[in-house]
Amino acid sequence: MKEITKRVIIENVTPEIEGGRFAARRAVGEKIVVEGDIFADGHDIPSAQLLYRKKGDSEWRSCPMNPMLNDRYQASFEVKTTGRYEYTVEAWIDPFKNWWEKVKKKEDAGENVSQDLVEGGAMIEKAALRAPTEDANLLSRNAKLFQSGERLTELLLFALTSDFIHLMAKYPDKTNKTDYSRILEVSVEPLQARFSAWYEMFPRSCADDGSGRHGTFIDCIERLPYIAEMGFDVLYLPPIHPIGVTSRKGRNNTSKTGPNDPGSPWAIGSEDGGHRSIHPELGTFEDFQKLIGAARRYGIEIALDIAFQCSPDHPYVSEHPEWFRKRPDGSIQYAENPPKKYEDIFPLDFETEHAQELCRELLDVVLFWIERGVRIFRVDNPHTKPLRFWEWLIGKCKEKHPDVIFLSEAFTRPKTMHRLARGGFTQSYTYFTWRNLKWEIEQYFEALTQSPTVDYFWPNLWPNTPDILPEYLQMGGRPAFLIRLVLAATLSSSYGVYGPAFELCVDEPKEPGSEEYNDSEKYEIVQWDLNQPCNLKGFIQRINRIRRINPALQQNKNLIFHPTQGEDIVCYSKFTDDLSNIILTAVNLDPHHTHSTILKLPLKELDLDDGRPFQMHDLISDARYMWRSNDNYLELDPHAAPAHIFRIRRKVRTERDFDYFM
Amino acid sequence: MKEITKRVIIENVTPEIEGGRFAARRAVGEKIVVEGDIFADGHDIPSAQLLYRKKGDSEWRSCPMNPMLNDRYQASFEVKTTGRYEYTVEAWIDPFKNWWEKVKKKEDAGENVSQDLVEGGAMIEKAALRAPTEDANLLSRNAKLFQSGERLTELLLFALTSDFIHLMAKYPDKTNKTDYSRILEVSVEPLQARFSAWYEMFPRSCADDGSGRHGTFIDCIERLPYIAEMGFDVLYLPPIHPIGVTSRKGRNNTSKTGPNDPGSPWAIGSEDGGHRSIHPELGTFEDFQKLIGAARRYGIEIALDIAFQCSPDHPYVSEHPEWFRKRPDGSIQYAENPPKKYEDIFPLDFETEHAQELCRELLDVVLFWIERGVRIFRVDNPHTKPLRFWEWLIGKCKEKHPDVIFLSEAFTRPKTMHRLARGGFTQSYTYFTWRNLKWEIEQYFEALTQSPTVDYFWPNLWPNTPDILPEYLQMGGRPAFLIRLVLAATLSSSYGVYGPAFELCVDEPKEPGSEEYNDSEKYEIVQWDLNQPCNLKGFIQRINRIRRINPALQQNKNLIFHPTQGEDIVCYSKFTDDLSNIILTAVNLDPHHTHSTILKLPLKELDLDDGRPFQMHDLISDARYMWRSNDNYLELDPHAAPAHIFRIRRKVRTERDFDYFM
Repeated sequence: MKEITKRVIIENVTPEIEGGRFAARRAVGEKIVVEGDIFADGHDIPSAQLLYRKKGDSEWRSCPMNPMLNDRYQASFEVKTTGRYEYTVEAWIDPFKNWWEKVKKKEDAGENVSQDLVEGGAMIEKAALRAPTEDANLLSRNAKLFQSGERLTELLLFALTSDFIHLMAKYPDKTNKTDYSRILEVSVEPLQARFSAWYEMFPRSCADDGSGRHGTFIDCIERLPYIAEMGFDVLYLPPIHPIGVTSRKGRNNTSKTGPNDPGSPWAIGSEDGGHRSIHPELGTFEDFQKLIGAARRYGIEIALDIAFQCSPDHPYVSEHPEWFRKRPDGSIQYAENPPKKYEDIFPLDFETEHAQELCRELLDVVLFWIERGVRIFRVDNPHTKPLRFWEWLIGKCKEKHPDVIFLSEAFTRPKTMHRLARGGFTQSYTYFTWRNLKWEIEQYFEALTQSPTVDYFWPNLWPNTPDILPEYLQMGGRPAFLIRLVLAATLSSSYGVYGPAFELCVDEPKEPGSEEYNDSEKYEIVQWDLNQPCNLKGFIQRINRIRRINPALQQNKNLIFHPTQGEDIVCYSKFTDDLSNIILTAVNLDPHHTHSTILKLPLKELDLDDGRPFQMHDLISDARYMWRSNDNYLELDPHAAPAHIFRIRRKVRTERDFDYFM
Repeated sequence: MKEITKRVIIENVTPEIEGGRFAARRAVGEKIVVEGDIFADGHDIPSAQLLYRKKGDSEWRSCPMNPMLNDRYQASFEVKTTGRYEYTVEAWIDPFKNWWEKVKKKEDAGENVSQDLVEGGAMIEKAALRAPTEDANLLSRNAKLFQSGERLTELLLFALTSDFIHLMAKYPDKTNKTDYSRILEVSVEPLQARFSAWYEMFPRSCADDGSGRHGTFIDCIERLPYIAEMGFDVLYLPPIHPIGVTSRKGRNNTSKTGPNDPGSPWAIGSEDGGHRSIHPELGTFEDFQKLIGAARRYGIEIALDIAFQCSPDHPYVSEHPEWFRKRPDGSIQYAENPPKKYEDIFPLDFETEHAQELCRELLDVVLFWIERGVRIFRVDNPHTKPLRFWEWLIGKCKEKHPDVIFLSEAFTRPKTMHRLARGGFTQSYTYFTWRNLKWEIEQYFEALTQSPTVDYFWPNLWPNTPDILPEYLQMGGRPAFLIRLVLAATLSSSYGVYGPAFELCVDEPKEPGSEEYNDSEKYEIVQWDLNQPCNLKGFIQRINRIRRINPALQQNKNLIFHPTQGEDIVCYSKFTDDLSNIILTAVNLDPHHTHSTILKLPLKELDLDDGRPFQMHDLISDARYMWRSNDNYLELDPHAAPAHIFRIRRKVRTERDFDYFM
């Protein structure tokens, strides 16, 4: 019943995910903008402050929240280091502030306010009791002045000085303040969590000497300049562990294996070791360290694959048979999704009484690689392990290593994907791979960039992966690769390609209707000829450079689609909060034919002036256009360039801007 | 860490208001449909059940939840009595059910399933341990059959019998089941909370003998047939308590009072008593009981006004001066909203150390009237008292008297109004009073009928009140009253008018630009001539009768607006969940001129057949029209009838429906 007299209500605080059950996600250096509905009965206006601290700190820091429209208040705090931060809100009715508003109105109406002044004096006197000596003395003196009933105007003139208002605001009467019922958290991630360009590559196909031998980490180092030149900053390697021999898959995923077939890197574990070991043909731990170091010198971070599954030859199978599911005949259950069988894979069983030991071991595996300098992990099929397991594992890792990034490779149902993201995955694979039409691109990315989704689900868009050669790329030739690249690189601040298959425009499926690559690198060593003239490396370099110099493309929240005529050209803008950087992308989705459209630009929203021309600078072709209205003509030939990426330059100088005009 | 192995996730359960902080609202007899996102890792499909009970019961009841699209599950339970109900969800992976799905697929693919059968047998054996003797024996026999490895087809044929599947489903393995983290509540209200037609009337103006004397409760009884004939079922009386003398307001809210001026009923309290007393000129407690009884015989419930404020003559002022705010000069602070002063009103102060006693007293006041048979309260300005106070007071009242209805008269900012509704108010005043244009009506009612708003905010629409004669009624003459009546009565299942001013089309404001009535009944006794030909009683009677026989108009959730050409005609349908009752209302919002439009009907949504005509039966004029397509012409003359209220009759009989055709 004591609660009754707490007059202020605090509701709908954002960011807040599922009542604070999960942390929101932000990148280091960002301002965390916190809002809340704050109101009370009657006419009094509440005062509110945001409380925040790095998790683990004992003291809260605070800053006042400012009222906006419709009883919504806002404040923000900056986060300069990675890790967890906590925040909450408190609000109260400040009797002096509300008294002050009332007295002003009465005075304006010419009413007698002598009684009010005495009341104000009493409040100042009380504030003096809350203040340290110096301020207390100043307040007491003024309290007496008010209570003496001296001439009003004089007092008002005095009180109106912002110094005095500020002084009183320093010692508010917070009796009966309301605390927001929850302490919320935000997970502050390294910058690369929000903005990254990934390149997936099989190290074993990196030997460039034409010998066809198994590539090594040292070969990868040789490849780094090529990758860096294209502008990628994450180099993601499929599992680097020893590969199983039993039931090893042959070329094109057949069950017949030739003597030189290297097997799938995802069939982890052999007599050479398991998840803590390196496949001997790739090199040593020392080589691996060299690769990490060399990559960093190129501004590239190495990402490892976490695939928590075992080949039948994995040491766990003999050392910890209790971590697998045993069949009645004593054999271990291989992976299956009836009628499909994966006999080269033994799944780990999280439903036995030994599950907790298993989980601890898997955590230790991740920590093992973190200790060896790995900062980014791409997690294979996380949705086939308990979702709460990942929440626990990632939480544990980030307690000590808040900089680590986890990318969830969950191509599964939407609820599961979102839960993995809320549960801690820094980045997530998406349905982008299959979203080719204008309406589905618009619908999907509008949903992904809205709150609260954008607060936890950070998309990483992949036009292709070793498992997925989408139909669109099979059918559309080189323009299709350009189109999908531009879309991936501009619709999301993180994207990736599986190369060199991508930049070489490899488009042959295993069979018609299949999304698998023919002669997939998953099952054999491929000798890539990077010097083919079709190589898109120059175009990719340009796109990644555009991303690097335009902050609008380095975040996901500010995205608007613009209406265009027809279904062939999709058009959207991304922009920074302050609109200082606006990037408008227009893509012809038809890889075969030229299309044109009339594009409708929301000039006001983009802070453009209908009366003055503005410059559209195409960062792909370097051409510049002058536009001046909201209706604008566009034409895109997929065989020349299927897209524009315009930087909108608002200020176009006229003669008046130059000295000699004066 | 134990949580890790709970594989099933339960999220986004609805209805749920602010994480279960508030109860959803439903009416007695409804099905409470509960949904949730339920999913797990991997391919296993979760089983789920809804748990529910009347609050206070120790045992949960349960029913299985059925999967719908996109990992959403649904179940429902019926509520046959008013009061609070609790519900929650639990879900688990049923190994047998998932095993069964897998085995079927493997069998279809012609694979050997002998090992699977043994596993199935083991599960049946375990189920036997959870079953009572008879079922246990049956299960054990079958377990042996499975484990013996007999011919598969035979077993499948046996197991396929739904009896056996049901038998196993009775004893699922719920190890590691997941409980939803919250127990949610729904407040089940009497039917009249959802569906009601209110009539506000000043008892003191009810003396029909032409003498001009002060009306009494007995006069009100005489007026009941008139009110009942119009079809209202709630008769709401402004405060019936003694009226203060000090600073009493005169006619037209002046500060000069004539000797016969009765004062505002909202200036409560005199030497005759306070909130527990009846104004002597209205009659006695016995008379009041007679009125309640007589009204019930007409199907009318009496609603009282709760206005927690005092005239300077209220007994509280002398008995409990500590419940008021004292000024430095010892006087009690009257109500003010600078520069406005309300010297006839002393507000109660909820910020003193005596606030809890005050709150208890106010609760006792409400209980006092409940004990005297009052079931409905209209609360005056609840937003000027602490919002949590109401939550506490209504909660306390409804613990013992779940049938009581509280209407919140809060014409204030949206967040506050919504919080009052969430906090327990059964019905709420709305902005309808000022929503006259097509777009604003559409926007406002689309918002009000969407979840979660519709789960707690039950609108009660008032075209006028003693305080508000809206501009629209001042300007539009008789058609304006008809238009606003039809809108109020069809846009919401609860509405009310302040009469007889409404049905007599009183439209004279105190002065131009004012919303106050001239010679307002708030400050004087008015002698109404109900026999004026302008009286809308016949029209009102028809509208209320339409509401009574059409369940579509008795609820708020199923409302869709239909596109019409132009801004003059607004058109919408309301319908029952099963579409057996569809009411389409079209209103010409211009009270001066005839307008026509083409209306677009969503035939599919309304389950109408494009190929077959359907009948539009105008329940106002009784005219019938045959329509057959989604584009239809409408014309409305405000001076004849400014609205259609169509019942859509789907089935139009043809010769094939009659025996003699055969």
